[in-house]
Amino acid sequence: MLRQLFAWIVGRRLENERLSEEKFSVFWGMPILSSDAISSVAYAVEEMLWILVPVIGMASYLWMPRIAISIILLMLILVFSYRQVVEAYPGGGGAYVVARDNLGSGSGLIAGAALSIDYTLTVAVSITAGTAAITSAFPQLLSHHVAISVLLVILVALGNIRGIRESSRLFSIPTYAFIAAVLALIIVGIIKGASATHYSIPEVEMSHVPFGTELVTIFLLMRAFSSGCSAVTGVEAISDAVPNFKEPPEVNAKRAYTLLAFAIIITFGGITYLTNVYHPVPTPNLTIIAQLAIDVFGRGGMFYFIQFATAAILIMAANTAFAGFPTLLSVIAQDRFVPRQFAMRGHRLNFNNGIAILAVLAIILVVIFQGSTHHLIPLYAIGVFTSFSLAQVGLLTRWFREKPDGWPYKAVVNSVGAAATVSTVLILGVTKFSEGAWVVVVVIPILVVLMLGIHGHYKSVARQLDISNEALIGTDLSRGTVLHVIVPIDSMNTMVVKALQYARTMTANVEAFHVEIYPGEGDKLRNKWALLNTDIPLVMRQSPYRDIVGPLVEYINSEDHASKPGDMITVMLPQFFVSKWWQTLLHNNTSIFIANAMFRQHKVVVSVLPFYLEADK
Amino acid sequence: MLRQLFAWIVGRRLENERLSEEKFSVFWGMPILSSDAISSVAYAVEEMLWILVPVIGMASYLWMPRIAISIILLMLILVFSYRQVVEAYPGGGGAYVVARDNLGSGSGLIAGAALSIDYTLTVAVSITAGTAAITSAFPQLLSHHVAISVLLVILVALGNIRGIRESSRLFSIPTYAFIAAVLALIIVGIIKGASATHYSIPEVEMSHVPFGTELVTIFLLMRAFSSGCSAVTGVEAISDAVPNFKEPPEVNAKRAYTLLAFAIIITFGGITYLTNVYHPVPTPNLTIIAQLAIDVFGRGGMFYFIQFATAAILIMAANTAFAGFPTLLSVIAQDRFVPRQFAMRGHRLNFNNGIAILAVLAIILVVIFQGSTHHLIPLYAIGVFTSFSLAQVGLLTRWFREKPDGWPYKAVVNSVGAAATVSTVLILGVTKFSEGAWVVVVVIPILVVLMLGIHGHYKSVARQLDISNEALIGTDLSRGTVLHVIVPIDSMNTMVVKALQYARTMTANVEAFHVEIYPGEGDKLRNKWALLNTDIPLVMRQSPYRDIVGPLVEYINSEDHASKPGDMITVMLPQFFVSKWWQTLLHNNTSIFIANAMFRQHKVVVSVLPFYLEADK
Repeated sequence: MLRQLFAWIVGRRLENERLSEEKFSVFWGMPILSSDAISSVAYAVEEMLWILVPVIGMASYLWMPRIAISIILLMLILVFSYRQVVEAYPGGGGAYVVARDNLGSGSGLIAGAALSIDYTLTVAVSITAGTAAITSAFPQLLSHHVAISVLLVILVALGNIRGIRESSRLFSIPTYAFIAAVLALIIVGIIKGASATHYSIPEVEMSHVPFGTELVTIFLLMRAFSSGCSAVTGVEAISDAVPNFKEPPEVNAKRAYTLLAFAIIITFGGITYLTNVYHPVPTPNLTIIAQLAIDVFGRGGMFYFIQFATAAILIMAANTAFAGFPTLLSVIAQDRFVPRQFAMRGHRLNFNNGIAILAVLAIILVVIFQGSTHHLIPLYAIGVFTSFSLAQVGLLTRWFREKPDGWPYKAVVNSVGAAATVSTVLILGVTKFSEGAWVVVVVIPILVVLMLGIHGHYKSVARQLDISNEALIGTDLSRGTVLHVIVPIDSMNTMVVKALQYARTMTANVEAFHVEIYPGEGDKLRNKWALLNTDIPLVMRQSPYRDIVGPLVEYINSEDHASKPGDMITVMLPQFFVSKWWQTLLHNNTSIFIANAMFRQHKVVVSVLPFYLEADK
Repeated sequence: MLRQLFAWIVGRRLENERLSEEKFSVFWGMPILSSDAISSVAYAVEEMLWILVPVIGMASYLWMPRIAISIILLMLILVFSYRQVVEAYPGGGGAYVVARDNLGSGSGLIAGAALSIDYTLTVAVSITAGTAAITSAFPQLLSHHVAISVLLVILVALGNIRGIRESSRLFSIPTYAFIAAVLALIIVGIIKGASATHYSIPEVEMSHVPFGTELVTIFLLMRAFSSGCSAVTGVEAISDAVPNFKEPPEVNAKRAYTLLAFAIIITFGGITYLTNVYHPVPTPNLTIIAQLAIDVFGRGGMFYFIQFATAAILIMAANTAFAGFPTLLSVIAQDRFVPRQFAMRGHRLNFNNGIAILAVLAIILVVIFQGSTHHLIPLYAIGVFTSFSLAQVGLLTRWFREKPDGWPYKAVVNSVGAAATVSTVLILGVTKFSEGAWVVVVVIPILVVLMLGIHGHYKSVARQLDISNEALIGTDLSRGTVLHVIVPIDSMNTMVVKALQYARTMTANVEAFHVEIYPGEGDKLRNKWALLNTDIPLVMRQSPYRDIVGPLVEYINSEDHASKPGDMITVMLPQFFVSKWWQTLLHNNTSIFIANAMFRQHKVVVSVLPFYLEADK
């Protein structure tokens, strides 16, 4: 039942051959990979106002455009830099691969850890912001906002488990709907703003806002810039997922970057401009976009459409992370720095383990931060810009090392990129450290140490399992070990006879072993054994403490048994299998305990001879 | 850590030989097995008043002695009857064994089911009544009474897991303390009551009590009698546990019954007499015993001593059930009507599984009934008297069938016993049906059907495993099955080479099997295999759905492999074992999935060849 329901939700499994079919075109791929970058417009402007308005009031609206221009500039630098990443690394992997290949695996792991944190926060921030768009439209849902966020994370994760292509069509619509909605808002807003001095914000709300009485400090502007940087997050995603584009993937990915740059400049620039016209004030219950929509269109159909489109793109932004993170993890898993299960494709050809762990981590964040975007933001951008910086510096060193055609131009682009992103990391670290960025500073090294430990384990396993070609050639398979089989038995029955027959076929060297729990209890077995008329010895041991496993372990480790040192002991367990699972509860299941104890003894092979019981009659 | 703590709580394990040491004398055994019977005095009188006082007020105190005398009479009949049970069944098992042997296994199971319900309710009722004694002394604990009850159940269960003898000394003290406390209360109460008309009950409390205005109906008296019958519960326990007494167990058990009869007559009779003198009125927050203690001694040291002694004996009454129920279950388990695990003795020679399940069931009851003794009582006595009746009728048929020395006397005793207990069952069924007795009437047949199902399963298993002596004599162990070994391999490594060597020693008939997940992925393995220069075939299968287990199952069920029909296929799994448990998470653990799938295929032996990895360096 449950299995069928799950199968219905995730769809039927797909063959390997269909892997190449499941690819993005530019038009459908850009929105799915960049809904994060585009949607962050929805909260980035608001987060900047949260920093400025409580301190400098109306003066905020004068400073907003200047900060916005610096952020758009930063974004353009990033897009140009990342187009070069795509060109240099058509295999995907983004900052992780770039840093690993050019700066060494240590830097790669730092980038990988930073990106992992970034993806997790992308899901948490986008989903909580999307929930805020919903509760702005329907204030009666405000008290359930944490539950709504958790539910949305689960829905997006399930959608991703279903598969790439189906999701790309479906999940692209919200991005285009959001772009359309914001364009309408901007155009109508500009026209209305030009035709009338149209400040509809109630005096009540404005009255508590100071009117430029405070000093506009550099630090304040840097804090606003830091918050605004959240608009740039998600630019990485396309470069991580280059192989998901249709042939030729590099060209399509670069085109997607160009398309993305246009979308962000227009939406982010336009919304910032509108704040300068309508002067919205950030409050916890009504988003800035919602306030602008009310100012421009009133609380009518367009208002609800804008809220829906905003919620939808923010939810799809979480989807960006669900597309990017599992791909990144699979690349790191191929390098053996995270569990190899992350490199395995599921029924629908996606990396389900990565999707599942991302959902769990995001839900934990949402619950801890009680669904507040505002409190999650300070943790957010530092991880992103750390990976940006590593990618830029990595690429820069590459150009100097490899000197490909036109490398001076490339080096200039990435120098500018490196300078911009490194200084942004410093600004973020300084301005947001005490508000939460310190968490990221602590977690990144922990993750790196963890990944190094995992890598060490895999290397150790490989070293112990590896066999050289010379050794293979020299192997003589016919010169096997001497076999010695011990069959633990409780009583004499059909199953035991089968096990003894099987053991006898393996080797002449067979013993039966019985633990006598109460003195004399084994006499019946002894008599039955005599009837069998075999030379297989029946070994009996007393167990004053009613323990069956202990005496067997003792016997195997003692010198009494017939094996010589170096022999391989096989413990042959006759085990019946019942026809209904609950019937297992009616039996002692001693075999399981014996098998577990045997695996703790070195050099014991455990064989299970099954005996299938029919249903009760 | 946790294991050590548990070991410290339950004590070190005991040898089989110490089984005979862990026995009761009459003096220490009676209180531990009969604390239930004696302690029920504490609530039986109160439950009778709960029935009478709200209806007939002061007239209750006139009727109380008459009902009490009929209950004492019933108790004497039971004690005499059960002394005959002990004599006839020195092996223990009580009503279950008596009914099974004389009336057939169906009646035995009804008795067994009734007793099981009885024991569970004994724990729940005694513990909640004990908690009421505590909260009467410390009213500030009233709001935590459910949590206190649950905690007490767990403590008593742990005490029982520790062992018989140690508990007998420790747990007998409360019974004697209670008897002493009640004797003191009765003696001082009678003296004070005679020297003065000493009705200290405030007028306020009495004012709402009707003063004999209602008709004293037979039905009302029967309901009061039914509630009072809870005083007689627990008489069974000594006969269930005869083998726990020191040699000669029958004689000691009969002596214990005589001692018990005296104890109940004095305490139950005395308290009933005191209610006639002091007229206490039942209320939810102060027990009748507590009210009497305040009347006789005031709220001083003696009051607290009586409350403590009452709480202690009630808690130890739960202990009666923890001594009796596991013993009963072990007897039923030996007859194969409940899972055989209930017949296994634990580290401390007790039947730990029975103790654990009793604790769980009692806690469920306490929580469902929110710790109210008053609401549990209607479910209680009907199970007890059902088993009493079956035991009496069973013994009666025995005397008529076997006619031992002095059988007419024995027959008379048990005829009276049967008549008394059967009519009590009828009275209980009629007067308490709608209050909760119906639950018992529903649950008993369900338990009987369950036990018959379990028995059917064990019989079916035995039939399928059984081998006759003739078949044993005719068995030729040298004529074994033909062996065919399949070794599933992922890549070529040291472990695989060992597995192939081992398999080759078993039989010449070995195949290696590899699942190719992506086309061409197996080429490396093929090349390595060629180096091995062996005639063992390497079978490869494609898996378009990335499933490893499926192709192996298909191969085994196909005709392609080298086995002939009737051959035994052995799947040999090379499996490495990591040195730290968490490292298991870093591996696919495909072997586990393969082993589980193989066990679903009939006629496949699964062999695990372990390879132990060293710790990472």
